[in-house]
Amino acid sequence: MKPNQLNEASGVFLTDQYQLTMAQLYFRMGLHETMAQFDHFFRSYPDYGIHNAGFCVNAGLDSLLDWLDTVKFGQEEVDYLRSQKSATGGQLFGDDFLSWLRDDFSSKAINLYAIPEGRVIHPNVPIHVIEGPLAVGQIIETGLLNTVNYQILIATKAARMKQSGRDQLLMEFGLRRAQGLGAVQGTRAALIGGADFSSNVGASRIYGFPPKGTHAHSMVQVFMGLGEGELAAFQAYADIYPDDCLLLVDTIDTLESGVPNAIKVFEKLKNEGHQPVGIRLDSGDLAHLSIKAAKMLNDAGFPDVSIVLSNDLDELVIWQIITQIQEEAGRYGVEPDHLIKRLAYGVGTSLITSRGDAALDGVYKLVAICPDDAWIPTLKISENIDKTLNPGNKRVWRVYDNRGNATADLISLHDEDIEHQIPLELRHPTLASKRRLLCSDDIDHVETLLVPVIKAGKILTDRPGIPDIRKVRDQDIECLDPGVRRLMNPHIYHVSLTRKLWDLKQSMVRKTLADKEN
Amino acid sequence: MKPNQLNEASGVFLTDQYQLTMAQLYFRMGLHETMAQFDHFFRSYPDYGIHNAGFCVNAGLDSLLDWLDTVKFGQEEVDYLRSQKSATGGQLFGDDFLSWLRDDFSSKAINLYAIPEGRVIHPNVPIHVIEGPLAVGQIIETGLLNTVNYQILIATKAARMKQSGRDQLLMEFGLRRAQGLGAVQGTRAALIGGADFSSNVGASRIYGFPPKGTHAHSMVQVFMGLGEGELAAFQAYADIYPDDCLLLVDTIDTLESGVPNAIKVFEKLKNEGHQPVGIRLDSGDLAHLSIKAAKMLNDAGFPDVSIVLSNDLDELVIWQIITQIQEEAGRYGVEPDHLIKRLAYGVGTSLITSRGDAALDGVYKLVAICPDDAWIPTLKISENIDKTLNPGNKRVWRVYDNRGNATADLISLHDEDIEHQIPLELRHPTLASKRRLLCSDDIDHVETLLVPVIKAGKILTDRPGIPDIRKVRDQDIECLDPGVRRLMNPHIYHVSLTRKLWDLKQSMVRKTLADKEN
Repeated sequence: MKPNQLNEASGVFLTDQYQLTMAQLYFRMGLHETMAQFDHFFRSYPDYGIHNAGFCVNAGLDSLLDWLDTVKFGQEEVDYLRSQKSATGGQLFGDDFLSWLRDDFSSKAINLYAIPEGRVIHPNVPIHVIEGPLAVGQIIETGLLNTVNYQILIATKAARMKQSGRDQLLMEFGLRRAQGLGAVQGTRAALIGGADFSSNVGASRIYGFPPKGTHAHSMVQVFMGLGEGELAAFQAYADIYPDDCLLLVDTIDTLESGVPNAIKVFEKLKNEGHQPVGIRLDSGDLAHLSIKAAKMLNDAGFPDVSIVLSNDLDELVIWQIITQIQEEAGRYGVEPDHLIKRLAYGVGTSLITSRGDAALDGVYKLVAICPDDAWIPTLKISENIDKTLNPGNKRVWRVYDNRGNATADLISLHDEDIEHQIPLELRHPTLASKRRLLCSDDIDHVETLLVPVIKAGKILTDRPGIPDIRKVRDQDIECLDPGVRRLMNPHIYHVSLTRKLWDLKQSMVRKTLADKEN
Repeated sequence: MKPNQLNEASGVFLTDQYQLTMAQLYFRMGLHETMAQFDHFFRSYPDYGIHNAGFCVNAGLDSLLDWLDTVKFGQEEVDYLRSQKSATGGQLFGDDFLSWLRDDFSSKAINLYAIPEGRVIHPNVPIHVIEGPLAVGQIIETGLLNTVNYQILIATKAARMKQSGRDQLLMEFGLRRAQGLGAVQGTRAALIGGADFSSNVGASRIYGFPPKGTHAHSMVQVFMGLGEGELAAFQAYADIYPDDCLLLVDTIDTLESGVPNAIKVFEKLKNEGHQPVGIRLDSGDLAHLSIKAAKMLNDAGFPDVSIVLSNDLDELVIWQIITQIQEEAGRYGVEPDHLIKRLAYGVGTSLITSRGDAALDGVYKLVAICPDDAWIPTLKISENIDKTLNPGNKRVWRVYDNRGNATADLISLHDEDIEHQIPLELRHPTLASKRRLLCSDDIDHVETLLVPVIKAGKILTDRPGIPDIRKVRDQDIECLDPGVRRLMNPHIYHVSLTRKLWDLKQSMVRKTLADKEN
């Protein structure tokens, strides 16, 4: 794939064929400019097998806005579509439809409402709501899902790792094992969700972070191959990077060779007035080795240099390492908390691919259509009742309890003003018997989550940078119940419907089933 | 991310920072143009949890060649690197090194040997061998791994699905759940490994396949929202696409509504002289529903229209569906084999993300260096003996037994000619006690797997298209023992070392450990 091909595949053709065949059908029926509303939401938190998320971190909106800018049909795109054939050899797409695509299709025709990046999000809550001409809303579906589903997935994984590492420095190292060029978007999401830096040079450059990295085993191997040893390699590195000297100590033997050689080099650096940065451990029992290495570094007068851990880390491995350090460090004369606070983590495959659950089940569903002047809610029922849509134009609210904690997300119809409906009735999305009543004493405040982002072709909001998005993330995570934040078996956060939405949904389900009988 | 940023992040900066800091060190030491050899290989087959692969399908080389063409440092790249700062605020990369990058660095300075795309490959066997200036070989590591690891992973997954679906039509539908733009490369790999077509318009266009797709639930919902029903939606679709009419029948109720409505439309099409294509089932018990739908279609005089299955399929789900059809179809008066042969599969998330194992553990390791005129093998030992490198310049051979089946891959030193070393001694890579002797009666023939691809800046080989790569795949899979092809608990294929390579590796391990003691 050459660079120009990459651009061709990442613009308006970042879509599924059926979006185009459906769009042509709408065009033929005169429905292509009928206003429609689509909700983007996910159905369930990532489930990593033996652990699962209790919340997600939102990410991807800014990339979506960039992508929408590229969504247009030029002559080249139209020519390609004209070349597509039906089964009997005729033109699959008619010239009238193609002219409309080229001359009249515009991604600027949509209104977009979105939950801002960095916010905590939950299943079934609309994160992006698109209101626009039916054919436009349909054609952008796939690209929207491709752009945001993955970023939410990775921001969530990064938040978990940051949490299990107790907010110590977290570096994203996954480019080599990533799913191709998705790495660029994945790195952005990692930086939003919890990674402080990345080794990925291109992505770091785009998003304005200095890329991080020092050296690999291969550098030590080169010196060994030339008949010199690890010490010579370390010394060469220190000579060139005296103020950025972080040494990988496990090429030969961590405790017998790597750490002693690093200490020799650090002593020389110190004598020359430089501050050594640290060591990196990349194999073996990282908890045990970090304790032994810390002891050696402490004894040599380097109690503050970092110990970076890497090698297939994920949130549970990090958690386990910290637990083991707490139990074991004291026996070696190392203060556990001091050691934990000098650790940093380099995380690769597990972060950039969201190991254990490599896809968010985000969907994009038609919920309303406006053939004349009035919106009509639409439904899709399902054999699985949990998958039956919440129909209609809606609003999303977050309810905070009197401790200031987020206690529930509430989905209402668009004409409901929750702030004036207290006491609030919270209905379970599918079970009639499950409901909760919150009176004003229970509620600190209520806020709306969806923000208007695009209206009449204009972007209405600021486009915050990653540092600001991280502040939003920290605030929102802070407002979660500790049980919801738990890495394993988290407490279930309530996502509820108002009575009015519940009633609409039930009546539509009944009507659809009755129509079917007839 | 805007299109120009995507290009910036997918060229030479598709790399990790430490490749650049190491390259500068080599430059300062005068080692940057020292010839070095790096092997790319993976350590273990994808393990999907309750099942695992017994072989992989190679993919990615052509994309790698495209990427290598973009790997250069222009003034803009050099300016960015010049802006990077050390911890104390000085320039991290010196002007002399940056001038070398801009003026003298060339990815054309490497020689590349590779196993062709489509071939069956196994762990620890070098797939790509890079021979070139140390700094160049180092800087291209990350991009090479990013480009080929994911494609091998997805080609392998696609081959498994194609196999479990008994070679029926397989369509890739995963763009919406893919890990961002990796989808483009993933689609290529899916098309190599086993998918016949893809819904991804951009990727299909690049790789020369017609994209596939008809309509979604949303189209039926639109008609329902407008007060019309599923039948009207189907009829509208058939009117516009009379020769490409494949209808999604599960928006309301598959057997009560979808299939009867599809049959009505098909009858009209047939009367008008068109051949209906089929139906798609996307929810519920796909095996049971496909039997019942087949019966209805048969009874209505449509025994040949396709039944496309989708909804979170993977190789085991497909296998299970076929098994259930074999057991259950007869009871409903449906001939199981006839039904199985009219099925097609649309596979999404599980294929494009390789669900269960979302990353191939492919690595790129320094194995030899040539400081003067002679190559010196290099080693990295590991706490885990399986991860100790096979050192030196090597060749790779595939040994076929007298049934014509591939029986082992054999790694030798570069100066060994296996064809003249029969009887062959095959040594286990790590266990001294495990060896196998093959005499000439056991061996049909031996072939080399690595092909010279780039030499002196020139691409030596053809760049086969995907149809030709598929032929290679089919031939190679055909030569595997059925036990190796098994989807669950496959038989272990032997990857062995020659005695000479085994001896070299052992002597180097002994020497490294001895040096450490001193």
